[in-house]
Amino acid sequence: MPNIYDLAYDLEKGLRESDEFQALKNAYEKVMNDPSTKQMFDNFRDTQLNLQQKQMQGEEITEEEVNKAKQVVDLVQQNEDISKLMEEEQRLNTAIGDISKIITKPLEELYGEDQ
Amino acid sequence: MPNIYDLAYDLEKGLRESDEFQALKNAYEKVMNDPSTKQMFDNFRDTQLNLQQKQMQGEEITEEEVNKAKQVVDLVQQNEDISKLMEEEQRLNTAIGDISKIITKPLEELYGEDQ
Repeated sequence: MPNIYDLAYDLEKGLRESDEFQALKNAYEKVMNDPSTKQMFDNFRDTQLNLQQKQMQGEEITEEEVNKAKQVVDLVQQNEDISKLMEEEQRLNTAIGDISKIITKPLEELYGEDQ
Repeated sequence: MPNIYDLAYDLEKGLRESDEFQALKNAYEKVMNDPSTKQMFDNFRDTQLNLQQKQMQGEEITEEEVNKAKQVVDLVQQNEDISKLMEEEQRLNTAIGDISKIITKPLEELYGEDQ
């Protein structure tokens, strides 16, 4: 019987070598290697994180903050390299979500049986 | 290059055949096959879920509810089969947490590089 940790490491290696991960890596490095694109991307991430934290803590988000966030989103969407990165992130997140569903299936079946 | 979904299915199969999962399955079935133990376990789960939902919705939890929950926990802890099940659940959750850390390592490394 193969060890589950060995199987997990096989999957990790496969993910690392996959087209999905390599495309994400290339897109990420392209953004990071251009200082002005990197700054735009960092700014976008900071704005998102800041709004998420406020929302989670039940703080009010002002109209000014909403407008500023919209401007930042508009800006990054016009940047081809950042759009590509966001697309590749979405693609890998979908793959990881699918994988997660596959490996938790035994548990789901067990707990679903008697309900 | 192996397909990541094939590797995920290999891991799923490995998990299903693992000692950890088989022990959980046996413990779960033992609880489910004894009607009075099953009822005690269902009652415990319902109480937990109810309190969690109240907490998440910011509702107040009364002292009576806290005391009732404590009684239910005391009761299930005295039941050997339920204690065993909870122990096996904990063991498999730890394994799945470890696996999750292993397979998200490529992403963590990529996003950690420039920060």
